[in-house]
Amino acid sequence: MSGISIDAKRAEQFYSGEEFTAMMERAKSAKEKLLGRMGEGNDFLGWLDLPVDYDKEEFAAIKEAASKIRKDSDVLVVIGIGGSYLGARAAIEFLRHSFYNNDSIAKNKYKAPQIYFVGNHISGTYLTELMDLLEGKDWSINVISKSGTTTECAIAFRIFREALEKKYGKEGAADRIYATTDRKKGALKTLSDAQGYKTFVVPDDVGGRFSVLTAVGLLPIAASGADIDALMEGARIAREDAFNKSAEECGPLCYAALRNIFMEKGKSVEILANYEPSMHYISEWWKQLYGESEGKGGKGIFPASVDLTTDLHSMGQFIQDGTRLMFETVIAIDKPRAEVIIPSDDADLDGLNYLAGKTMDYVNKNAMEGTILAHTEGGVPNILIHMPDTSEKSLGELFYFFEFACGVSGYMLGVNPFNQPGVEKYKANMFKLLGKPGC
Amino acid sequence: MSGISIDAKRAEQFYSGEEFTAMMERAKSAKEKLLGRMGEGNDFLGWLDLPVDYDKEEFAAIKEAASKIRKDSDVLVVIGIGGSYLGARAAIEFLRHSFYNNDSIAKNKYKAPQIYFVGNHISGTYLTELMDLLEGKDWSINVISKSGTTTECAIAFRIFREALEKKYGKEGAADRIYATTDRKKGALKTLSDAQGYKTFVVPDDVGGRFSVLTAVGLLPIAASGADIDALMEGARIAREDAFNKSAEECGPLCYAALRNIFMEKGKSVEILANYEPSMHYISEWWKQLYGESEGKGGKGIFPASVDLTTDLHSMGQFIQDGTRLMFETVIAIDKPRAEVIIPSDDADLDGLNYLAGKTMDYVNKNAMEGTILAHTEGGVPNILIHMPDTSEKSLGELFYFFEFACGVSGYMLGVNPFNQPGVEKYKANMFKLLGKPGC
Repeated sequence: MSGISIDAKRAEQFYSGEEFTAMMERAKSAKEKLLGRMGEGNDFLGWLDLPVDYDKEEFAAIKEAASKIRKDSDVLVVIGIGGSYLGARAAIEFLRHSFYNNDSIAKNKYKAPQIYFVGNHISGTYLTELMDLLEGKDWSINVISKSGTTTECAIAFRIFREALEKKYGKEGAADRIYATTDRKKGALKTLSDAQGYKTFVVPDDVGGRFSVLTAVGLLPIAASGADIDALMEGARIAREDAFNKSAEECGPLCYAALRNIFMEKGKSVEILANYEPSMHYISEWWKQLYGESEGKGGKGIFPASVDLTTDLHSMGQFIQDGTRLMFETVIAIDKPRAEVIIPSDDADLDGLNYLAGKTMDYVNKNAMEGTILAHTEGGVPNILIHMPDTSEKSLGELFYFFEFACGVSGYMLGVNPFNQPGVEKYKANMFKLLGKPGC
Repeated sequence: MSGISIDAKRAEQFYSGEEFTAMMERAKSAKEKLLGRMGEGNDFLGWLDLPVDYDKEEFAAIKEAASKIRKDSDVLVVIGIGGSYLGARAAIEFLRHSFYNNDSIAKNKYKAPQIYFVGNHISGTYLTELMDLLEGKDWSINVISKSGTTTECAIAFRIFREALEKKYGKEGAADRIYATTDRKKGALKTLSDAQGYKTFVVPDDVGGRFSVLTAVGLLPIAASGADIDALMEGARIAREDAFNKSAEECGPLCYAALRNIFMEKGKSVEILANYEPSMHYISEWWKQLYGESEGKGGKGIFPASVDLTTDLHSMGQFIQDGTRLMFETVIAIDKPRAEVIIPSDDADLDGLNYLAGKTMDYVNKNAMEGTILAHTEGGVPNILIHMPDTSEKSLGELFYFFEFACGVSGYMLGVNPFNQPGVEKYKANMFKLLGKPGC
């Protein structure tokens, strides 16, 4: 049974029992549509069964490649954007040390390479400065692009490939380039086959934002030394629950219903909140998942996020007392990775001795409770999602929980949650301005 | 004359000339109220004159302390939250190398300490892991808190002070602790005087979110080796413009007017966008500035931010085609810090040869143009703010530009832009739950 659970008791005051029942009926229908593969975008439902139906041979090859990278590289440069970036980054920042990339922590603590992401923007400054960092180090590349022609990634890959070939020669570099791309076709697949790069597959039926449990996410995550078997196992458990539990006991269904209730009551912004800095990129991943799935046809809830208690001292005032346009979803980690006892101090000038001997997490949890109370009193409905710990298994559950809820929620909203037509518009304009042949 | 300029040509299609004229009249009145110190919160207007009227003696002492820290410390731990955190972090991340804290870049390139921020949340995990990083290093603390009793900072300061005293002894530690706090009173001032810590002043008439150009921001910024004279000079120039230019030529006034026009047309979310990853924390600083200043009494524009082109592949779909509730403000850096020429490739499988020989920034700027066009076509009004370069001077201008516009905009909205009553609510609840004596 999944350890992820949902607590709606600070949401209930904002709707009636009848409203909830009616919305749960819609959620149930949406789930049937999803599982029956009867909705729009049903050729992109490969993610639904990934945790039980994945390519075991490729999975083994991912672990083997990760193991080689961990042996022969001080740094892994991961080139990808959007869904080919956020899932891996979210997982690594959540599962590893807060300063993973600093001062040999990756190497000493995890026997793993430092991992840097590039190709997710067009900043020459960042690229130049990442090159500085590679000076004198052994490094490898994981380039992730279905087509191999996404501008941001293609530019970065040209430049880092050139640098790698300069350092190791063409053959040496080929041994250090891992391409996650289309199974059969496209620029990157063609290049990889010609040069002899090891390749991994971006499945045809899994969209970018649902791809964290494919090679797209798994190779960088495994390179960091994290346990991808446990990650998949967590997702499997969450899938089991999502498929089989009764509607009332099914967390993702409940989450989908609640957010649609609030949206229909005029809450146009959802704020995802955490109380651990390591969760920052989980929120970024979630923003793509929901923003890109639902934000179409003039519809959707605007996804925003805060890191707390940090942002209580920046966005807190607005959430408490500004325009009443949002509801809040909090992810609580029941058991944090490390604990600190607050020391006593004879002088007690700061007045903290009433907390001496308590753990920081005890204070953190009370800050969370106090904040939820304050925000709901301020008219901001609250959905609380419990996550048992910071393990790979729990993260796998969380990923699947949100993916499943997203599919359901998108169908409830009446959109195709699996396309992203709007993303092409800036590209078309850009190509025209750049004078790309044929545009 | 300030190098910061505002370009409204992609906003104009969304309002009439009459609407703009009328709103500019309101902006002018708000400016008079601000400069005449006739509005609510007028005891917190110290920031208005900071760039010309600051304590020169303290400024020299800040540079001296920074110079000492740079000589005797591998790491500076900065303890602060909200306004005592975001300004310094925004400046350091913008002005320094993208990987400032990694692999001795701070030391080799800037002869400066690595700088880590803590005390801005209650995560025992982060705190424990930051301690890991300090192992074997020489370090100092800059603790920033007007009262010294803010829970997040006080906990962190207890723990890091204890560790510093364990390493260097009580006296040795006292020589490495710099307290930025109230001039006369409060827990931290009392402790500092008793222990002999060097102290700097959080002025009484400057609120946290307007404090980046006081010791609050300046000491950490100077410790990173950045030029705080140039930062102040930039702010001075922006102040000159803001005070003296005619309304039509005054950027901050125009910005304040535009955002109020869009708000009154039902745009309840403002998205601040950048095209350089180094600007991420400038957006976070801006979110506090506007969110905390305007988000009260059920009013205000919800401040959000995106890093582009990264987030075009996550939030781009929503901005293009989701619920029409936002306008976008883009900050463009005319001249980036570093440049990269896109190389040619014989095979040209990725089809990028049409860009060979061009700089990445050329592509980045066209991506920006194409995106602005796409978003305005999608019904998202665009305000473009030009910043000449990534220098300290330009950043000083930008800080002052946004602060001035914020004061004006808040008065236009009819709120007191200089208080933050809502921030107390979570604290009161938390103290009660924690059983704090007297609560």
